[in-house]
Formats: sequence, structure tokens, C-alpha cells
Amino acid sequence: MQIALAGIGKIAIDQHVPALSASEDWELAATVSRSGTVDGVDAFDSLDAMLEACPEIRVVSLCLPPVPRFEYAAKALAAGRHVMLEKPPGATLSECAELERMARARGLSIYATWHSREAQQVAAAKAWLADKTLKSLHITWREDVRRWHPGQDWIFEPGGLGVFDPGINALSILTEILPDAIHLREAVLSFPDNRQAPIAATLGFRHPGNAAVSCDFDFRQEGEQTWEIEAICAEGTLRLTHGGAQMFVDGAPAGEALTGLAGEYPRLYAKMAQLVRNGRIDMDLSPMRHVADAFLLGRRETVAPFHF
Amino acid sequence: MQIALAGIGKIAIDQHVPALSASEDWELAATVSRSGTVDGVDAFDSLDAMLEACPEIRVVSLCLPPVPRFEYAAKALAAGRHVMLEKPPGATLSECAELERMARARGLSIYATWHSREAQQVAAAKAWLADKTLKSLHITWREDVRRWHPGQDWIFEPGGLGVFDPGINALSILTEILPDAIHLREAVLSFPDNRQAPIAATLGFRHPGNAAVSCDFDFRQEGEQTWEIEAICAEGTLRLTHGGAQMFVDGAPAGEALTGLAGEYPRLYAKMAQLVRNGRIDMDLSPMRHVADAFLLGRRETVAPFHF
Repeated sequence: MQIALAGIGKIAIDQHVPALSASEDWELAATVSRSGTVDGVDAFDSLDAMLEACPEIRVVSLCLPPVPRFEYAAKALAAGRHVMLEKPPGATLSECAELERMARARGLSIYATWHSREAQQVAAAKAWLADKTLKSLHITWREDVRRWHPGQDWIFEPGGLGVFDPGINALSILTEILPDAIHLREAVLSFPDNRQAPIAATLGFRHPGNAAVSCDFDFRQEGEQTWEIEAICAEGTLRLTHGGAQMFVDGAPAGEALTGLAGEYPRLYAKMAQLVRNGRIDMDLSPMRHVADAFLLGRRETVAPFHF
Repeated sequence: MQIALAGIGKIAIDQHVPALSASEDWELAATVSRSGTVDGVDAFDSLDAMLEACPEIRVVSLCLPPVPRFEYAAKALAAGRHVMLEKPPGATLSECAELERMARARGLSIYATWHSREAQQVAAAKAWLADKTLKSLHITWREDVRRWHPGQDWIFEPGGLGVFDPGINALSILTEILPDAIHLREAVLSFPDNRQAPIAATLGFRHPGNAAVSCDFDFRQEGEQTWEIEAICAEGTLRLTHGGAQMFVDGAPAGEALTGLAGEYPRLYAKMAQLVRNGRIDMDLSPMRHVADAFLLGRRETVAPFHF
């Protein structure tokens, strides 16, 4: 199937283009970007122009920043195209709900992707937890914003989500692997004195079995970087480390040997191909809803100014 | 039908009890409260005790504050009771989604009420707007928090919503009367230096017809209080004033003469009776989603400390 990619920046070049090149499902047939291009692929600088020139391209993948993404997605859907969305699927929950309604009304597929859910051991962790009795679960997601987002002031602007930009990846794994629904009970959000988005956050959730479920997100972690989930169950302890790439049970390596497609983005695109073939929608907004809940319910504290 | 009322505070005494007394559908058969009671009605100080003692009461109406409400609603649903929720329906969007799933799985009714939608001219305003071309819409919702919430510090605590406690009423009317879906594009939230919730907010929405849709919420309004929506259309101008009680078109009084039930709460309880009879669910979270979006996307500014 032919696909167009809109928003040719770092994530497109690093992840989307290689995943599409290696895919048996997809042919990257056009790009839409004001600046970036991909060698050998038709380049358009506006979505309108691409939609008009390429009626044979039935699918559009959007990896622009969240704020402008809605207009692109709405135009693509209005033009009868299926749509795939980078995370987070939009700047607001309401616009995501609106996109889902639009797709449903037109019989189109739309996919809110969460790439961390495709990390190597997430499915194995989910399978392991399915029949266990959870006692407590703690997420530590600590990284150095200067290393991963050097000079990217937008991440601390309104809508940029701050530490929830990586934190939403952790929440996407959490909502995938837990068999039970949780909701936020309390949160503390640490805003640098000179910024509009939090640089750190702690979250506490209500779990139906009264397990203690908590998160520690921090953007100020120098040295070793930590993306880890520890679930203590009556039957043993699961650790999912390296953002879901490695799994341990009671300290011993566990999980599945890799079969099939390697890598998060190749798996996302394989799922998108299935959704389109089956005429289905996948718009699970639960990770983003937890983030919105944290902004809604969280206690704000002011911390030292942050400069890149 | 017999109904139990949990949370016997000011809103229960002022609105819920009189509405139930006047209703032909309902008999107030029990109250649940640690402090309040209603003359002549069986009083329980715990929900568990009421649920166990009164299997014949099939419906529970919750007018406690949002933060403890989830546990009550979940218990009532787990015990096979239909549930009616005061606004806002919870402290987080995720818990509301969970309650809806629980009710659906058990074949029970649940109703997220928005009392301002039952204001006298809201239905007439909706009917008038249905075939008009909207050019712009502005909401002015300015009231004196000292007058309406004297000494209620909880309203400025995390989860208390601040000016969005009344503002969500405006948003519940807006989402009811507009034929098109909107989503937040920008917001400014004014937090008093000593408080955790905004005392004022301005919101700007994206409308599919590119009408300018905006809100001005302020909790610092002394003197005249304003709860007003003005919608300028190609065909004329609608004004909905006094929180939806009065309607004007091009300056002349308009809307419907009152027939049927008088008052917001009697109409809410009549709707709940219909939902239970028909085995239906009404959990429209769109007003609360817009509030969460405002906290998520809004620019925060610090303003003068506020003291009651």
C-alpha cells in the first residue's frame, strides 16, 4: 500500500522512514514537509497539494508536533484517507475524540500509536502479569532532557508536556500491561520557575486491588538513564527495564526471544496495515488521559529555573 | 422508585431534596452522610450499611465532593445499583471512564448530570442555533467566589478546579447548544500566588467553521454577576443570560414558555428516571474534557494572592 509521511524531522528520519523501507506492507510514496525530504520520494510542501495530486495514496502518517497535527489529520480524513498519528495523538483530548468521530463517520481507519508499547518485552510482561496478584508497581522514568531534547524549548511550552513527553511512554506501557484499570489519586508536578511545563512529577494511582501504583518521572537525570517498571506480585517480582526492551522475573532474565518484526516502529506500521485491511480504528487515549488527569488534579510546586 | 441520596450538604438540601420531594418518579428512601440528615428519611452514616440494609433501593444519587465520589459510585455499581452523579462526575477523566465501563458491564444506568444544561432556555437556544451559521461565540462567566463559596478553601485546592467549578457549567451549556464539535486551541489560566487552582481563565476554541469561540471566566467579579453566552450568527445574534434562564434574539426576549417540570434539578431527576426505565447510560464527559484540556494546554500566569 502506498503511504505519505507528513512532518519530515528527526523522528521521521530516524524511525519512520527506515521502518517503511523495511516493510513488506508499505511503499513510501510521498512526503509532506516545509523543510525535510527523503531521497527518491515525491516531496510536497503542503498537505492539500499532496492530497490533490495523489488520489492513489490512501494512507497518511503524521509525525508533526502535536499542536499542528489536528489540522493535518482532519484534512486527510476529510479527503477520505486513513490516518496514523505519532504520540501523543494531539494537543487536546477533545480533538482526538473529534478525529475518532470523523474517521468512524467516514468508515476510515485511524491509529493513535504508542511506540513504547511495541518495545520488545511489553507483550511478555503483559502475559506474565495477566494471572498474578499485584501488590505494588513503581515506575522510574528518569532521563536527561539536555541529552534527548537539546535546546528544544518547545517541550517546556504550554502543550509541550515537559517530563510527560517521555512519561507518557511509561504510561502507555503501564496501561497496556496491567490487567486492571487504574486512575490517578494524587500527583505533584514540579514546574521550573521560568517554564510552563513540569520538569518532574510523582503520581499515585488507585488500583482496584489496592496495590500501590506510582510513578517517578524526572527530566534532570544526569549519568545513568533509567526507564524501568517494577511490579511486585504475590507470585514474584517483574522488572521491565530499558524502556521495555528487557524483562526480569525475580532477578533472572525472562520474556520472549524476538521473533517476527524487530523494532518498535516496524511493529507500529504492521499494525497500521492490519487496521486498514480490516477497516478498524485504534484510538486508545488512556495514556494521554492520565497525563491530562495529572495536570487537572496535580499539586503544582515551583522548582529552580531550568536553562538548556 | 426508591432512591438513596449520599452526601447531605448544601447542594443536597437546596436542590436534590426538594426536587425529589416534588417528583412523581421518586421516593427519597434513605440518606448516607456522616453529618447531614433529612427529616423522616432513614439515615445511614456509611454507604456499605445502606447497601446492605436496603436491597430494595435500586438507585443511588451522589452529591458528595468529586474526590471521594468514585469510591461511592464504584461500590454502588458493584452492589448492582444505578448511579446518578453531581457535576463534575469525578476528580479525573479516567475514573469516569472506569465507572462507565463498570455500569455497562453490569447492565446498569449511570448519569453524569450537568444541571446547567437543564436551565430554562438551553433547549430553545440549541434549537435556534441548529440551522444558523455561527460567526463568533463568547462566554462571560464572572462571579464572586466570596459570595458563592464563602470560606471554601477546597475550591482552590488541587482537584477543586477553581474558576472552572462554575466555568464547567458554561462549558456544559456550550457543548449542548453548539451543533459542531470544538476543541481548545489556547488558554491562559491565572493562579493566585498562594493557591493551587486558577481564579480566572480565558479560553479560545477551534470551531470547524472557523467561528471565534472564546470564554472569559473570572471568580473575582464584585457587584453584578454575569453568566452569559452571546452567539453572533449570519442570521442574527443570540444571547443566553442568567446562566441559561433567559434568551434574547437580536435584543428581543425569545425562547420557550416554560412547560413541564420547573427547575434544573427536577428535570435532571426526570431524566434519571427515564434512563433507569430504558436501561440507558448518559456519561457525556465533554465539559470535563475541555477543562482537562485547559489545564493540559493552558499557559499559567501567577496573579495576586487570594484570601477569603
